[in-house]
Amino acid sequence: MIICTQLIMIPLGAEAEEKQVKDLFSYINTHQDEFVQNLKDWLAVPSDSSDPELREELTRMINIAADRIKSLGARVEVIDMGSEKLHNGQIIPFPPAILAELGKDPTKGTVCFYGHVDVQPAKKEDGWSTDPYTLTEINGNLYGRGATDNKGPVLAWIHAVETYKALKKDIPVNLKFIIEGVEETGSPGLEDLIEKHIHFFSDVDYIVISDNVRLSKKPALTYGTRGNAYFFVEVEGGKKDLHSGTFGGILHEPMRDLVYILANLVDSSGQILIPGMYDDVAPLTKEEQKLYDDIEFDLEEHKNSSCVDTYLYNTSDEVLKHLWRYPSLSIHGIEGAFSDTGSKTVIPSKVTGKFSIRQVPNMKIPVVEKQVEKYIEDVFARLHSPNKVTVSLKIGAVPWLANIDDPQYTAAKNAITKVFDITPDMIRDGSTIPLAKTFQDLTKKSVLMLPIGGADDGEHSQNEKISRFNYIEGTKVFACFFQELSKLHGDPINGMPLKN
Amino acid sequence: MIICTQLIMIPLGAEAEEKQVKDLFSYINTHQDEFVQNLKDWLAVPSDSSDPELREELTRMINIAADRIKSLGARVEVIDMGSEKLHNGQIIPFPPAILAELGKDPTKGTVCFYGHVDVQPAKKEDGWSTDPYTLTEINGNLYGRGATDNKGPVLAWIHAVETYKALKKDIPVNLKFIIEGVEETGSPGLEDLIEKHIHFFSDVDYIVISDNVRLSKKPALTYGTRGNAYFFVEVEGGKKDLHSGTFGGILHEPMRDLVYILANLVDSSGQILIPGMYDDVAPLTKEEQKLYDDIEFDLEEHKNSSCVDTYLYNTSDEVLKHLWRYPSLSIHGIEGAFSDTGSKTVIPSKVTGKFSIRQVPNMKIPVVEKQVEKYIEDVFARLHSPNKVTVSLKIGAVPWLANIDDPQYTAAKNAITKVFDITPDMIRDGSTIPLAKTFQDLTKKSVLMLPIGGADDGEHSQNEKISRFNYIEGTKVFACFFQELSKLHGDPINGMPLKN
Repeated sequence: MIICTQLIMIPLGAEAEEKQVKDLFSYINTHQDEFVQNLKDWLAVPSDSSDPELREELTRMINIAADRIKSLGARVEVIDMGSEKLHNGQIIPFPPAILAELGKDPTKGTVCFYGHVDVQPAKKEDGWSTDPYTLTEINGNLYGRGATDNKGPVLAWIHAVETYKALKKDIPVNLKFIIEGVEETGSPGLEDLIEKHIHFFSDVDYIVISDNVRLSKKPALTYGTRGNAYFFVEVEGGKKDLHSGTFGGILHEPMRDLVYILANLVDSSGQILIPGMYDDVAPLTKEEQKLYDDIEFDLEEHKNSSCVDTYLYNTSDEVLKHLWRYPSLSIHGIEGAFSDTGSKTVIPSKVTGKFSIRQVPNMKIPVVEKQVEKYIEDVFARLHSPNKVTVSLKIGAVPWLANIDDPQYTAAKNAITKVFDITPDMIRDGSTIPLAKTFQDLTKKSVLMLPIGGADDGEHSQNEKISRFNYIEGTKVFACFFQELSKLHGDPINGMPLKN
Repeated sequence: MIICTQLIMIPLGAEAEEKQVKDLFSYINTHQDEFVQNLKDWLAVPSDSSDPELREELTRMINIAADRIKSLGARVEVIDMGSEKLHNGQIIPFPPAILAELGKDPTKGTVCFYGHVDVQPAKKEDGWSTDPYTLTEINGNLYGRGATDNKGPVLAWIHAVETYKALKKDIPVNLKFIIEGVEETGSPGLEDLIEKHIHFFSDVDYIVISDNVRLSKKPALTYGTRGNAYFFVEVEGGKKDLHSGTFGGILHEPMRDLVYILANLVDSSGQILIPGMYDDVAPLTKEEQKLYDDIEFDLEEHKNSSCVDTYLYNTSDEVLKHLWRYPSLSIHGIEGAFSDTGSKTVIPSKVTGKFSIRQVPNMKIPVVEKQVEKYIEDVFARLHSPNKVTVSLKIGAVPWLANIDDPQYTAAKNAITKVFDITPDMIRDGSTIPLAKTFQDLTKKSVLMLPIGGADDGEHSQNEKISRFNYIEGTKVFACFFQELSKLHGDPINGMPLKN
């Protein structure tokens, strides 16, 4: 017998709910210029986490965000994250992180929002049409570094909360925030932070990340990402680079060995040639296939935006599956060889090929690593080369897959339907988003990725933007999401009691 | 019937000749500190032709050399070489070149010496043990940038002439000089200079270049170099680099195509896989084989200095032939791919592989070019890739081979025997020395490469040096060479009349 101490919150009636949504949307619509101005203020802070010279600006940005969350009535803790040592030996502080909470009603569900307020580097001379740190609105788009990644979504979430507060409405969920300032440099210290503050997550039911973009114009929920097993294969022939005139013809040239190894990793159809690589790939179920059938995806538009004429596959279904649920292998480059313009007559002594495998459920990193090592050893043995080969795994990021039957996915779907009158696409991301996996693994909580930005937002590119439409409608989605969560959470009819 | 208007110079008798050699050597020995001091003065001028900031120093160096040659009594012309446009749009003058002549006796042979007074870049912090622009003598070696390449040999030649002048001896040949200041940046303008002043070469019998080093400690004459056919093979898949997470798995990745092409160029035994590549290689004659039998070459020492444990070949004979008289193919690197340290998840859109073929007599560049193009086309066709491949020949430097039966080779051999009591090795250089071929082709004169520096002089490396011994004995070789040339030139017994 399961003893179930279920906490019940009385949901709004249908009419009251409709009225509340109307009020929320109306407030958001009428305050949108203010929300855009807030984003403008945030984008004006050059919080580029990759530039040590801007570290003070980054810390200032964290403090601005902390004050903003404090103004919602939240209890905010600004946590020292220690310091880092630069290549030149200089030690500079990491920006602090924010842990905050608003509401502690045991009858409500608790949702924790993760976001970051640091940005990628940006310089006008890199090819920006506008100043990257001055939000500029052109044809309904809000251009500026951080607009979509991730200041816009963080502010949209804050504005959604603020809307409840301004309308003096009860926020239907307890809220928590975890905001960091070094996501763009790989979130150093984040795991430690979560582990040290694991009690902070103890009463959290859902974790929401809004740090990616949609697949198309259509709203979407992201439920999975691929992993990344990044390998270096080093071939060493001697201790110094030699001249191809003086030595060409008598050496076992390391570049020759390396290109042979690299040429044997993947064939021209995209098939990875490493034995066993596909053994653990999760079989495609009927339910999963169904998700693909419904997706809005314009293959031609995708090709246009990637500037590539011909893909390996001709259908949207195949393309998406090969981006999301099958592994791929890419060769990124070679370190140690001649890579500049011009023509240098060098025989490099030590060259390192770099390639990565985007692995998928249920591939295991240690298995992949062994398969790669064994295969390269076998391929290299064919060359009878006296050179020395070393294979090393440099990044081992695992794939992430959410349970899409989890209530917060349903709540998010309903919220999106309420705002856009559409059922969102269930999408994955071919890239690694280690955060989702990190939060899922460390906190054991349900993680949802709820993007509000568009596919063409150019997160890490020049002319990053978010559309005013997505920014404002995204705010509405977040506001509705709180309501939908509370409905699922406390509604015995839906039969989804969460705290038991 | 050939009408032969032979010019006869009365050679010295054997005894007088012996006396003269003794006087010359004695003078050179007693003045060696002065010669070293002169070299010190020259090395103090940072005449690095690759650094636009040092252009004035370079011009100053040319003027110092011109004054020095003038002081021999020569008629010196300092020739304006125009200007060059830098990448930043700045226009700076090339350093002038020197054409000089000393003596116009129609009964004597005329030898023209080529040299350069610019140097490779050098900075103490690059790993020099001493200041590169301060000649420093350690254990009999004279360290400093330009010591062996090429200021040392240029001064040795000047000192050889000076020795005759100081001893008030008749210089047994007419002398010409062509000295430039941009050899290290590829001698731009040199061909033009030769063509515009082709009359300057009309009465020249021999051209001597002393701008390379020996194979071992043993004195040597260089009679051939390999060529260099440097190819770019570009594979283009799209217009912009893409992210391997977002796009990996659906693209015909250009890097995959390129490594496949590169891996098919040469096998692991060093054999070039391009059909026809060996068809035109000059067959090895018995006479040529004889030259290899006599060469002093320490294979183990060679391996030690190259820091490579295992060569493709185990005998000196095979190693030297594969460096000098057989073609080789080296893969230098890839432009456009990721080449830094670290792990970037990029799918490069356009990558350019760079490789070169050191071709040998009697391979022809246009034939090699066609063979390479055709082969890469065939290899690429196997991939059924929609990417675009472009092959282009970027450097087409032809090999050079001198006629070693030419009198000046005999004269140089005799001079070396006189100084070192040894018969020099007849060697080639695996590298391209375009100058030799340029002079031979444009002037149609006999070209001799007469190195005085040692194999371990480190021409383009840190800690460049020439040994005091080689510098001083090299001066003696040059002085003797004048005498030996005159003997061959005017000695009817040897039957080598040169002016007819």
